[in-house]
Amino acid sequence: MGLLVVGSVAFDSITTPYGRAEEVLGGSAVYFAVAASYLTRVRLVAVVGEDFGDEPMQLLRARQIDVSGLEVRPGRTFRWAGEYSEDLNERRTLRTELNVFESFRPKLRRQDVNVEHLFLGNIDPDLQRRVLTEAKPGLSACDTMNFWIERKSDSLKRLLASVDGLLINDSEARLLAGELNTVAAARRLLSLGLRFLVIKRGEYGAALFSEGRYFAVPAYPVMRPVDPTGAGDSFAGGFMGHLARRGMHDGRTLREAMLYGSVLASFCVEDFSLRRLAAVTARAIEERFEELRDFLSLDDPPRRRAP
Amino acid sequence: MGLLVVGSVAFDSITTPYGRAEEVLGGSAVYFAVAASYLTRVRLVAVVGEDFGDEPMQLLRARQIDVSGLEVRPGRTFRWAGEYSEDLNERRTLRTELNVFESFRPKLRRQDVNVEHLFLGNIDPDLQRRVLTEAKPGLSACDTMNFWIERKSDSLKRLLASVDGLLINDSEARLLAGELNTVAAARRLLSLGLRFLVIKRGEYGAALFSEGRYFAVPAYPVMRPVDPTGAGDSFAGGFMGHLARRGMHDGRTLREAMLYGSVLASFCVEDFSLRRLAAVTARAIEERFEELRDFLSLDDPPRRRAP
Repeated sequence: MGLLVVGSVAFDSITTPYGRAEEVLGGSAVYFAVAASYLTRVRLVAVVGEDFGDEPMQLLRARQIDVSGLEVRPGRTFRWAGEYSEDLNERRTLRTELNVFESFRPKLRRQDVNVEHLFLGNIDPDLQRRVLTEAKPGLSACDTMNFWIERKSDSLKRLLASVDGLLINDSEARLLAGELNTVAAARRLLSLGLRFLVIKRGEYGAALFSEGRYFAVPAYPVMRPVDPTGAGDSFAGGFMGHLARRGMHDGRTLREAMLYGSVLASFCVEDFSLRRLAAVTARAIEERFEELRDFLSLDDPPRRRAP
Repeated sequence: MGLLVVGSVAFDSITTPYGRAEEVLGGSAVYFAVAASYLTRVRLVAVVGEDFGDEPMQLLRARQIDVSGLEVRPGRTFRWAGEYSEDLNERRTLRTELNVFESFRPKLRRQDVNVEHLFLGNIDPDLQRRVLTEAKPGLSACDTMNFWIERKSDSLKRLLASVDGLLINDSEARLLAGELNTVAAARRLLSLGLRFLVIKRGEYGAALFSEGRYFAVPAYPVMRPVDPTGAGDSFAGGFMGHLARRGMHDGRTLREAMLYGSVLASFCVEDFSLRRLAAVTARAIEERFEELRDFLSLDDPPRRRAP
């Protein structure tokens, strides 16, 4: 039931049409770990600076996340600043300070080897491959981004030949595959050796391509999204968290995992940073899961509450 | 189970990354009518110029579309020319010549009154309202576009208070509702008096909002889309065609109609103009419907063909 995530921890400064947040906890591994923590036990391998402080550490511990692999190094924690467009669909990076993240070399301990489930967050694909080789997980998946696709495409493709699954944005999937069409891109990426491919489409949800089958889940319809930062990582956390909880990755479990991904992402966008995501309940998650399942059904849903 | 459509007939000149088509049959009412013709009997009320010619008329008649309401007026048929971006998601209008469409005043005959199903394609909302008042249909739906939202918002909102359904693009839904978020926009539009609202999302499919329920259908995954012109109109044709065929518009029928919309749109984009859409078979449509239904299912689909 173990789920290990390797990725970034950051302090973000974010401006959206709904407000601003300065120096708030973020980073792909944090969103992933908090989302997954509702479904399974999570271990975090990442690096922070001496300025990280107690408060964010408390938040992670309160979610029962194992932070013993969170390395504290001399220097400052990774900083990112960004600004979103009016409809939240586009974002502009205002500032990136890698700080201690620049020289991050994930260190696996003995207990991290043969982990059951591994998620390789968006870091240098050379490092992702090294971790994958060392960890020998039961099931593995990864994310990546434009920066690595443009600079380390070969390393990335070697990674895809050995990892089980890839979760990636649609524009990045097309870039990586060298295809203009998402469906053609999916087919090409699967041919590199993936068992499953999840294409994340922001407010439009996500699509799963696996073993010749296609499955699409809509985004849970949120009335007042506030900040989309971390939504894709929260999706990945919900997705992998469910696979780890079930200890299976057959077709049905993968499809259920898509719904959990969508549910966790929906909580993420309802407030800045982890404010909403770290404060939901298992019951609220299951309720949205049931709602999403009903949204996919052609049948009239059973009435779940008294009229 | 009659379905009447009022809208535009045009000759389009289209450039996409996959080729060009010059002066080919198009227009919202044509795509709608051809798509719907696989599911029900369709009557077309529209205007063309003296240059319309026999060939397009033969195409419509071959699809059993009643063209007795297609008015031929002195002058030239509506022309539109456009060009699509590399990923087909953006288009630029190069030329619009309204010609006889500029002074189009839909004329209903006696047999068009009390029609069972009416679709008001994208024309001046003043005209849409007049047709709706005259036709007194059993069930009605309409489309619109930025041009009318910006110029005749009040007329449009009066239309929405009397029509049953609206099928509209997501950016137009937000513009019409004055909301940045699609879900909030949907809620506002429904409050104007609609029974159902379909938000079309291009390659991401479409969402249905009706009686407090949400339903999303993905686009049928097309490997080689060639030309998206008319996809939204074909969706509407498949959607309304299924409602007309069933003679019902309960929740389940509306959701099935979403799948037929997605199926007909998928055929539309596979070639320029009506080349593919006018040449499919009822069986191919039902096969894609079954596939889409399986794509929505959490369960493993039954094996439909021998292994």
